[in-house]
Amino acid sequence: MKLCKNVFTFIGFDNEYEESDIVVFGSPFDGTTSFRPGTRFAPSIMRNESYGLETYSPYLDRDLEEVKVFDAGDLEFPFGNTEKVLNMIEKFTKDIIKDDKIPVMIGGEHLVTLPAVRAVYDKYKELYVIHFDAHTDLREDYLGEKLSHASVIRRVWDFVGDKRIYQFGIRSGEKYEFDWANEHTILNKFNCNGIEEAIKEIGDKPVYVTIDLDILDPSIFPGTGTIEPGGISFNDMMEAIRKIKVLNIVGADVVELSPHYDASGTSTAVACKVLRELVLAI
Amino acid sequence: MKLCKNVFTFIGFDNEYEESDIVVFGSPFDGTTSFRPGTRFAPSIMRNESYGLETYSPYLDRDLEEVKVFDAGDLEFPFGNTEKVLNMIEKFTKDIIKDDKIPVMIGGEHLVTLPAVRAVYDKYKELYVIHFDAHTDLREDYLGEKLSHASVIRRVWDFVGDKRIYQFGIRSGEKYEFDWANEHTILNKFNCNGIEEAIKEIGDKPVYVTIDLDILDPSIFPGTGTIEPGGISFNDMMEAIRKIKVLNIVGADVVELSPHYDASGTSTAVACKVLRELVLAI
Amino acid sequence: MKLCKNVFTFIGFDNEYEESDIVVFGSPFDGTTSFRPGTRFAPSIMRNESYGLETYSPYLDRDLEEVKVFDAGDLEFPFGNTEKVLNMIEKFTKDIIKDDKIPVMIGGEHLVTLPAVRAVYDKYKELYVIHFDAHTDLREDYLGEKLSHASVIRRVWDFVGDKRIYQFGIRSGEKYEFDWANEHTILNKFNCNGIEEAIKEIGDKPVYVTIDLDILDPSIFPGTGTIEPGGISFNDMMEAIRKIKVLNIVGADVVELSPHYDASGTSTAVACKVLRELVLAI
Amino acid sequence: MKLCKNVFTFIGFDNEYEESDIVVFGSPFDGTTSFRPGTRFAPSIMRNESYGLETYSPYLDRDLEEVKVFDAGDLEFPFGNTEKVLNMIEKFTKDIIKDDKIPVMIGGEHLVTLPAVRAVYDKYKELYVIHFDAHTDLREDYLGEKLSHASVIRRVWDFVGDKRIYQFGIRSGEKYEFDWANEHTILNKFNCNGIEEAIKEIGDKPVYVTIDLDILDPSIFPGTGTIEPGGISFNDMMEAIRKIKVLNIVGADVVELSPHYDASGTSTAVACKVLRELVLAI
Amino acid sequence: MKLCKNVFTFIGFDNEYEESDIVVFGSPFDGTTSFRPGTRFAPSIMRNESYGLETYSPYLDRDLEEVKVFDAGDLEFPFGNTEKVLNMIEKFTKDIIKDDKIPVMIGGEHLVTLPAVRAVYDKYKELYVIHFDAHTDLREDYLGEKLSHASVIRRVWDFVGDKRIYQFGIRSGEKYEFDWANEHTILNKFNCNGIEEAIKEIGDKPVYVTIDLDILDPSIFPGTGTIEPGGISFNDMMEAIRKIKVLNIVGADVVELSPHYDASGTSTAVACKVLRELVLAI
Amino acid sequence: MKLCKNVFTFIGFDNEYEESDIVVFGSPFDGTTSFRPGTRFAPSIMRNESYGLETYSPYLDRDLEEVKVFDAGDLEFPFGNTEKVLNMIEKFTKDIIKDDKIPVMIGGEHLVTLPAVRAVYDKYKELYVIHFDAHTDLREDYLGEKLSHASVIRRVWDFVGDKRIYQFGIRSGEKYEFDWANEHTILNKFNCNGIEEAIKEIGDKPVYVTIDLDILDPSIFPGTGTIEPGGISFNDMMEAIRKIKVLNIVGADVVELSPHYDASGTSTAVACKVLRELVLAI
Repeated sequence: MKLCKNVFTFIGFDNEYEESDIVVFGSPFDGTTSFRPGTRFAPSIMRNESYGLETYSPYLDRDLEEVKVFDAGDLEFPFGNTEKVLNMIEKFTKDIIKDDKIPVMIGGEHLVTLPAVRAVYDKYKELYVIHFDAHTDLREDYLGEKLSHASVIRRVWDFVGDKRIYQFGIRSGEKYEFDWANEHTILNKFNCNGIEEAIKEIGDKPVYVTIDLDILDPSIFPGTGTIEPGGISFNDMMEAIRKIKVLNIVGADVVELSPHYDASGTSTAVACKVLRELVLAI
Repeated sequence: MKLCKNVFTFIGFDNEYEESDIVVFGSPFDGTTSFRPGTRFAPSIMRNESYGLETYSPYLDRDLEEVKVFDAGDLEFPFGNTEKVLNMIEKFTKDIIKDDKIPVMIGGEHLVTLPAVRAVYDKYKELYVIHFDAHTDLREDYLGEKLSHASVIRRVWDFVGDKRIYQFGIRSGEKYEFDWANEHTILNKFNCNGIEEAIKEIGDKPVYVTIDLDILDPSIFPGTGTIEPGGISFNDMMEAIRKIKVLNIVGADVVELSPHYDASGTSTAVACKVLRELVLAI
Repeated sequence: MKLCKNVFTFIGFDNEYEESDIVVFGSPFDGTTSFRPGTRFAPSIMRNESYGLETYSPYLDRDLEEVKVFDAGDLEFPFGNTEKVLNMIEKFTKDIIKDDKIPVMIGGEHLVTLPAVRAVYDKYKELYVIHFDAHTDLREDYLGEKLSHASVIRRVWDFVGDKRIYQFGIRSGEKYEFDWANEHTILNKFNCNGIEEAIKEIGDKPVYVTIDLDILDPSIFPGTGTIEPGGISFNDMMEAIRKIKVLNIVGADVVELSPHYDASGTSTAVACKVLRELVLAI
Repeated sequence: MKLCKNVFTFIGFDNEYEESDIVVFGSPFDGTTSFRPGTRFAPSIMRNESYGLETYSPYLDRDLEEVKVFDAGDLEFPFGNTEKVLNMIEKFTKDIIKDDKIPVMIGGEHLVTLPAVRAVYDKYKELYVIHFDAHTDLREDYLGEKLSHASVIRRVWDFVGDKRIYQFGIRSGEKYEFDWANEHTILNKFNCNGIEEAIKEIGDKPVYVTIDLDILDPSIFPGTGTIEPGGISFNDMMEAIRKIKVLNIVGADVVELSPHYDASGTSTAVACKVLRELVLAI
Repeated sequence: MKLCKNVFTFIGFDNEYEESDIVVFGSPFDGTTSFRPGTRFAPSIMRNESYGLETYSPYLDRDLEEVKVFDAGDLEFPFGNTEKVLNMIEKFTKDIIKDDKIPVMIGGEHLVTLPAVRAVYDKYKELYVIHFDAHTDLREDYLGEKLSHASVIRRVWDFVGDKRIYQFGIRSGEKYEFDWANEHTILNKFNCNGIEEAIKEIGDKPVYVTIDLDILDPSIFPGTGTIEPGGISFNDMMEAIRKIKVLNIVGADVVELSPHYDASGTSTAVACKVLRELVLAI
Repeated sequence: MKLCKNVFTFIGFDNEYEESDIVVFGSPFDGTTSFRPGTRFAPSIMRNESYGLETYSPYLDRDLEEVKVFDAGDLEFPFGNTEKVLNMIEKFTKDIIKDDKIPVMIGGEHLVTLPAVRAVYDKYKELYVIHFDAHTDLREDYLGEKLSHASVIRRVWDFVGDKRIYQFGIRSGEKYEFDWANEHTILNKFNCNGIEEAIKEIGDKPVYVTIDLDILDPSIFPGTGTIEPGGISFNDMMEAIRKIKVLNIVGADVVELSPHYDASGTSTAVACKVLRELVLAI
């Protein structure tokens, strides 16, 4: 009998690295999470639960069999050393880009977006960022720390600059963050209504899409660190992804699933479907 | 002192068999469930939790006291023998029909619908089927098995034939199932918008109504085997039931509650209310 | 080193009693709960989880730092003695009112509203009551008990009288309760559509606002005693609170969170935000 | 077809009232519970889960088929009225005794033991009480209330008197309770070591056995109101029951299972087996 | 960059098939489970959670690095067809044995042991079976079905014959099963006391070891289908494995973990350690 | 009316700072946790649940009213910056010691022990350490990080030196850690048998006691990061604490409760009782 080692990938992401256009990988880091940790478990649980999914999307009328995706598994991080973790992500993302593939990262907490965007920006200086989230993430620092999930978009702004970041679904933050956003980003409170305008303005410029899943209402996505009722519905999310399909997406991530806080498995199922649709939309 | 044995029925279903128009019974079978089993627990937990329910429906302005319903308890099945289970359900349903009563079954997984429809079809050859579900359930087979929860509606089609099955809320399946449906059933993607047209077309022909509760969004119904975000709301479900009230319903079922996956009890409460409204609508 | 004892208040409610306009306190009583108890845990768990909240509300564009609120902690009740508990609440509420402060109570089950309204009514004889709830709470008695969470609004009616109580979101009750409401209260089934009319009719008269959180759909608020699908959304609730801001609110409460039934923490997060918005609206 | 209403009894307790020697009934009351309520759910969940049990006990080498037991279901209580509840239990227990049957009650919280013992004592003035528990339950009052789960054995002492109560497994209480026990009861700290001596002393006098299941270590019985690590093992419990088999037991109860706090179902399975063994031992 | 597909094996089982002495594989079948299903999830969750384990055992003072183990992943079964599943297991096990490797199977429910023992017996006609379990599993049939988890050892007896099966830890079953065991197997009630005698009697004959994890007390192993308090401790299990190390083990399995019923993860951690020790003992 | 802000301390720890002999404080840090995070929630949940506790210990026959303890609440840490957190703990502990009080810390993960011991060592150069744990915690580094919960005792050894650390209950680690311990610490595998000898050897020298609660068996303490079956019982723990009462304890901690992983509350109840006994033993 001939047998190979047990391979474990997200459903439908079963191409070899060399032949793939998209490279999916997990960044199981939750070191700066301020409320409920546990996003470190998201990538492996999403792989596991993805077997409840179909590869065909009736939303986009497209099948994962039509795209070439490689699942690289998870990066292995040292615990308690934030800077080293961010460097590892940045280096890995750069390697993917160097091979002319599109990185799609599964978080982890939102801070992992920083090195991934930096790696993409390194190649695409005109980069725009589309940011789905419940929170502004625009703090200058959080309890003195500049590298925090609560200031990640502020850190991204440090290099992409003014009016390059479109924020959607925002419904929580300090007053000064909302005020700051007025001058430096394009912030949409509560929903994704401004998305068509954003698409028009961005045109064919390179775009990084970061989806903090807590943009979704906790009725459909309770499994996250900080629960913010009043979010968008799953169908709103599908609609938004369907729309950004026309953009020139050069990198993306899906972050902030903390699966242990939703024993029903709904949050993980939602995260899996958002990832499937995002990959089909690229 | 005179005391009788403890009787345990769904709230308001407390008539004797002889005097009842509707006979409710449980089919606690989940033998072909491919993802998360546990629908076997649904009927008894629904009976238990039904005591949190009122017998009066403000949706239909009707009370369970106005209808005659008998609760027969659960059928007792051998485990691991799918065919024997289906035969038991078919025989029991036929006996109910023979006594000129309307069978309303509580699943169990969706495959239990097959023998129940067959029993009803045995009497009503012009039978139509209204099918609420997240999934097409139209596979020719599932991993080689023709008798599967994923192919139950295909098996029903085997005898009721083309254009007799109206499907609502469908949002998951393989591409070929959607294509097949185009020719053989009337399939409504995502919602129940086509229900009024269906009602017009069916007229006063006999109808079997099967409600796979996973048609509901997992925000309100996470307690099921395969979670599919993007479903209809509870109010959409109430609305649909209110509308089909005018039809000549000769059999019905409510399936796919897997109560252990929703520790909050919401899914069970939803299933109980759907059952109450369905019975009031018949 | 100089250290003070650990103080524990709801986030942002950190003023001293003397300087405050609003006094928040917990009434951890669930003695007449008929289905699932546990609302006794609500006030302390809400305090604990409130640290996941921002003090700034983007809904009202207002910050808790702009209002003076004192958190008195929880009243300590004898277990099993309903009348003594109600007397303690009434006395404590009267003391707050005597000091010209507005009482805002965290339940506990809904029966705690009775003594609080009575205390407020003692001063404001023209009192109106705005009642958000899934249930009518208008039973004459419940299994023989006149003091019950299921008859609390009927007991309030005993002294405020006809057409002083506006009920919103009601979707469960016995038929006779709905009939009774037609003559004695202003009842809005299922939603809050009639709220603007209510506001117009009440004008600048004193109002007590009682929010039974089970008015919310269990998709967003499963952590409660009796689950009633078909409720209003969180955004509907925010909208209603935004509207009643113009009223002359002289007392309020938020009741019926039973946090242990929602392990995800969503229900508690919802309750916290409703309380924050309510306090900001007064 | 002829069908009877669905009957629901604890497994093996399926005799008619008239022919039975033992009458089991549920007292789903938890009104004075000071910490975590929920014992009200115990009797019905125990009935439900008893179907995982065998009727044969390898501990006692006896089968439930050899004894005649009737399961009367649960008493239906008004919520919030402690005295009325206690009166209902006392009356019902007296009726059973009048028919020369042995009452075995399923709680509910421990206070339900008071009226049951009183009813038994009414016939047997020489009554002894065997009390398995983690707590002394000897408070004069609890926050001013004399009728409390924390003072139930003190209230029993009020009429059975000194040195009639044997307490086992006690490991929690106020200092004064332990001191008081030294004079008025026979208290065994931590374990059941003194049980053989107790049996000798009691001889053939009538005995009431009350088992507060929190005598068991929370490793095997976490589903209870107040968790006290350091309890006896399940095998210790079996051993104790095996020993008291020789006594003249004229009444018994099993109380303080709060099933919702143990999602694994272990606590309920333990309670079921304790009840089975207790009934087989009578 | 060169990257391989994500490989997923139980910790330390990372050899290639050809070089390995032991082949581990999962049989995720729970089709005849009579009470709580879910053992189908055991193998993949055990792989996932094994990363909390060390490869070194202080019990045996041995490291997984010293043994050559291959993890073949899980067999993929059709749902609802018991016979086909058993045939697949038997064929796969025979193939492993043909390659002179020792099969170690992860269940699934206990019925999966039947085809595995049959495959081993096909080569070793003098086979003995060591059976750790809470249940006798000696029913002639279960609700008419001969192929059932409750009759698996009886089916094994059908071909290995009298006095070849040593049973340990048994504490549940019907009376007739215990009686039958007296004549046909060597049954140890409640514990593993007779294990040294068994080892002496078996000598160097080939042995199949089947560990139904419900032999363990539910305090340490609640995550299983049918909970039986009164089981052996984890240290008893370690001791038993340490002792059988001297035997000529030619096949083994670990079955009946149903991980979803123990949200704390303890049961899965226990199963992982039992598997590690068992493999180190072979 | 005069009212003070709501004060929230562990039960019985209600003295003022100045008058107290013992100062309890929480270090809610879990930044280097390698498996399941969440120990950050331990101190506040322990305060909350401590109200289910009596202040009297029948184990030590002593009451918390007899000792003077101050509860300082929790330190507030920056997230993601391990070094800054450790410095804050060290400084705070030194301040307590400077005021001639004994620090008792509630973790958090085990790494918080390092700065606390360092602060104590700063004053007591002859310090001994008693270390209760399932794990050796003697790694030179963990994935490259020297500051890790898995190397904390190794880091303590760096300054206290050879044969000053007594380890009890150890049952998990890499082989080289056990070997290293042979030369540098006094390691007791699996249990606390050597504790009396340790007490004799230490005599009246100053001792720091660190209790990693995962020394307890997961049957009684599943709520922790890495589950290791085969631990000591709660009564073993009580016995050990009773014995070390004679030592000159100058600092102590209780760490590694991760309360969210044990929904039953048992682990938290255990942690509370261990803390109560430890404080009574000092």
